[in-house]
Amino acid sequence: MRTVLNGQVIDAAEARLSIADRGFTLGDGLFETVKVVNTRPLRLDAHWRRLAEGAKVLRLTLPLDRAGLDHAVATVLEANGLGSAALRLTVSRGPGVRGLLPPDPATPTWVLTAGPLPPVPGPARAVVAQSVRRNPHSPLARIKALSYLDNVLARIEAEEQGADEAVLLNTNGRVAETTIANLFAVLADGTMVTPPVAEGALPGVRRAEMLERGLAVERPLDLAEVETAREVFLTNALSVRPLVALNGRPIGDGMPGPLTRRLVDGMDGG
Amino acid sequence: MRTVLNGQVIDAAEARLSIADRGFTLGDGLFETVKVVNTRPLRLDAHWRRLAEGAKVLRLTLPLDRAGLDHAVATVLEANGLGSAALRLTVSRGPGVRGLLPPDPATPTWVLTAGPLPPVPGPARAVVAQSVRRNPHSPLARIKALSYLDNVLARIEAEEQGADEAVLLNTNGRVAETTIANLFAVLADGTMVTPPVAEGALPGVRRAEMLERGLAVERPLDLAEVETAREVFLTNALSVRPLVALNGRPIGDGMPGPLTRRLVDGMDGG
Repeated sequence: MRTVLNGQVIDAAEARLSIADRGFTLGDGLFETVKVVNTRPLRLDAHWRRLAEGAKVLRLTLPLDRAGLDHAVATVLEANGLGSAALRLTVSRGPGVRGLLPPDPATPTWVLTAGPLPPVPGPARAVVAQSVRRNPHSPLARIKALSYLDNVLARIEAEEQGADEAVLLNTNGRVAETTIANLFAVLADGTMVTPPVAEGALPGVRRAEMLERGLAVERPLDLAEVETAREVFLTNALSVRPLVALNGRPIGDGMPGPLTRRLVDGMDGG
Repeated sequence: MRTVLNGQVIDAAEARLSIADRGFTLGDGLFETVKVVNTRPLRLDAHWRRLAEGAKVLRLTLPLDRAGLDHAVATVLEANGLGSAALRLTVSRGPGVRGLLPPDPATPTWVLTAGPLPPVPGPARAVVAQSVRRNPHSPLARIKALSYLDNVLARIEAEEQGADEAVLLNTNGRVAETTIANLFAVLADGTMVTPPVAEGALPGVRRAEMLERGLAVERPLDLAEVETAREVFLTNALSVRPLVALNGRPIGDGMPGPLTRRLVDGMDGG
């Protein structure tokens, strides 16, 4: 595949970074995953806004502007002959010397990679992560940061339990999200709820769209409410995925529910 | 400087990584900082044990063994003509494809860099980090992981407050450590205490030596106890550093205390 590294189009295999890049040495940076359907990047405004919010938290001056992103997206799609794709934009602080304080000025690194859109994921069976809880007392709970190892370890834990995903609780023991997605539950009374960002839910761009469209409301969510929900589904930039079992027990009747199926089929224009 | 990248000695400026390295994309890896005095690496056994513990948590097979590390340390010191030095060993999961699950088998990346030993740090003035609390419900609190952005953000916060360091509380509001060091307090009754690992303190190698030598004991530490301590000091692999002020108020008489000075002068063989 061809990739865009700091504005240059090159072969991904030849795209190399300094060993001093703070993305590598300290997880000091941000990323976004963008879905592209028929050459149209979905929710790119929302991705850009979240990236800009994250950059503010990191005190990082982004090395590209919105027009630069649009250009890079078009370039990477064309260079790889892709109409539909999953893009990943990574922005790190760039090279640094020893110590935690960023260089001033920094020379951030940015990389835009493209791959074919992965197949629509089947229904997920999850476990509740035992090894990791999500920390609402960290800015990292609200930004999409390169320091992502907590989620990696929860995903490995799920794999070792024979599950597809892990539900992450927050340090108060309530439901936050999963390792790569926000979680929505359709409760017994028919309301569709998702945990607030203050509970440790990453502010996902599809999640934001669901809330803006009035499809769901935010409120803290106990694990028991998820276990006894009519339907549960997981959202991220790429997909809406039914969650049909948790810790080995079915959710609802153990099949994707009607509201979930409607979103899976309809949300990204079919 | 010359560096060792995956066993090869090369110029640091030419040492390059794949953009797909999971150290860069997900903060998926570990590091150690090792002090070398007169060609003798200090506490290398303890660093190696901690790295091996971290690798177990990550389900990562280390790409070098202990003899390989000894050889690399000698090599990097000689290649740079250094007798005393600060080394950094970084081990990442290596290149990966999209998604959180590590490739199986992985081909981990390892890098050993060397620099001159930094000057002995002067007394520190710290603030208590407001933006970040340390999460004891994460394995990352117990291992030295590349996902280090919480600490970077706390260090930036300290800088913005005109301070040298930030004290990190845990999610229960008690003292855990600082952004790059463990914290010890000499209380009014003369006992020297440091927070347990279960409170969110990284198991530092110098900290472990202090405990093994019976110089200090572990117990949970309230912020008020630190504020009213006779002396407070910070330890990491490279140094023992007096903490003389917190949030603008002096600790003790605002000068390095006698126990602290003894450790600063004597601990690494003078």
